[in-house]
Amino acid sequence: MRVYVLPATFRGTEQFSVSGKDAHYLTRVLRMREGSCFAARDATGTFWDLTITAIDKGECRISCKLAGKEPAAVTDSLPSYRGPFPEIHLYQCLCKGKKMEQIIRQTTELGVTRIIPVSSEYCVVDISGKEEERRNKYGAVVKEALQQCGSSVMTTVADPIDISMIVSEWDNRGTAMVLHQVSVDNQMSLSELLENHVEAHPRAPIALVVGSEGGFSEKEVDSLVAGGFFPVLLKTNILRAETAAVVSVALAQQLLVSHL
Amino acid sequence: MRVYVLPATFRGTEQFSVSGKDAHYLTRVLRMREGSCFAARDATGTFWDLTITAIDKGECRISCKLAGKEPAAVTDSLPSYRGPFPEIHLYQCLCKGKKMEQIIRQTTELGVTRIIPVSSEYCVVDISGKEEERRNKYGAVVKEALQQCGSSVMTTVADPIDISMIVSEWDNRGTAMVLHQVSVDNQMSLSELLENHVEAHPRAPIALVVGSEGGFSEKEVDSLVAGGFFPVLLKTNILRAETAAVVSVALAQQLLVSHL
Repeated sequence: MRVYVLPATFRGTEQFSVSGKDAHYLTRVLRMREGSCFAARDATGTFWDLTITAIDKGECRISCKLAGKEPAAVTDSLPSYRGPFPEIHLYQCLCKGKKMEQIIRQTTELGVTRIIPVSSEYCVVDISGKEEERRNKYGAVVKEALQQCGSSVMTTVADPIDISMIVSEWDNRGTAMVLHQVSVDNQMSLSELLENHVEAHPRAPIALVVGSEGGFSEKEVDSLVAGGFFPVLLKTNILRAETAAVVSVALAQQLLVSHL
Repeated sequence: MRVYVLPATFRGTEQFSVSGKDAHYLTRVLRMREGSCFAARDATGTFWDLTITAIDKGECRISCKLAGKEPAAVTDSLPSYRGPFPEIHLYQCLCKGKKMEQIIRQTTELGVTRIIPVSSEYCVVDISGKEEERRNKYGAVVKEALQQCGSSVMTTVADPIDISMIVSEWDNRGTAMVLHQVSVDNQMSLSELLENHVEAHPRAPIALVVGSEGGFSEKEVDSLVAGGFFPVLLKTNILRAETAAVVSVALAQQLLVSHL
């Protein structure tokens, strides 16, 4: 189901207008005309039924009505999976521009709850002084992915933190794991860890920490493990950062979703 | 473990030379010098121990020796997972250039056995008359991915086939599934299908069919199902083709690998 994601400035008014990229998306991608009805959600995930009342010089005037649990107008009607989704937080060490965007796009498609960019020792990305630009870029990637996959999870991207802050930021909310392709003694597999997680607190969130292109330093893994994070080795090849991110989110999601 | 993949022209001679991209990879990416030893595999997956005897004007002269089951020289020594890998065949409907390459790269990284590009009704890719170019491009993507992840699966890419040929090409070698984000009655989940598969013939290969950007037509799914392919609906959002490919290969691999 394609769902239009309302601009962050939307405040639930009955009438509003969009122009620029948003108008382009509605008229060109979704091919909406005057009188067309379609489903939308605001930043909180609430559904709205929207009707285009006028299209004029690249501007769409829209009237909107709060929808019920499900929107009345859906832009396609495939009877696909609609939830529930387990709560997954991805601490993703910063990768170069396009790779980071690919990670954000693909994990948003999957329905990850929150992505927290992390700066770590082997990151090659300098994040100083571009906060606003990066925030806008990541926001646009998330919005596009949400609109395309009609996810019922309103994925958010947090501001970057240093890897040393992960343990306190996570604050023991649920099982936390660091993806590390080095085997250690007495290691549990991802499925064993998540089975234990489900037994202890089936609906608690989980955290995944995924490295940058350069991986983690030994010191970083040691201090995450000391903070209660479990090192996880997948029974597969050593994956690049962008593959490890989408694979680990997908695996965790499918292992957890059957218990919801 | 990084492993150099020998050129297809390699015939097991004791001495040989490489130039161009291969020489660049050895001297710049792996940073090999005269006297350096490193691990390599040929197109059949056999390991070789190589030594650089001379570097001269962009050409590397190399002496090589058949290695045992494991190469003596490994270019890094992370104690990562080394196999076994389940045999997975990916029938991938053709996507646009960069997306198809991303799918080939990521599923090769994961250790997929064989990728069969498929032309289907909603493919927007015209594959006529560019056989050689495409074969070279896909081959280069696979080689680069194999070298980077040190996979012990020598992934191959077949020549494209029409979607109507999939059932006969697969020839009932094992459980075959078509990823389709539409629910049908009495549908088994991927994990149920693979549990049945493992009980019946634990080491048999499996097949996954993944759609193009435009998905499948109903007729295509119907005729795959009539041919014994199981429709699989993942409990997640509707994924773009490139995400569906990497996710389904990763899920199938992790569900099967614990039974090998």
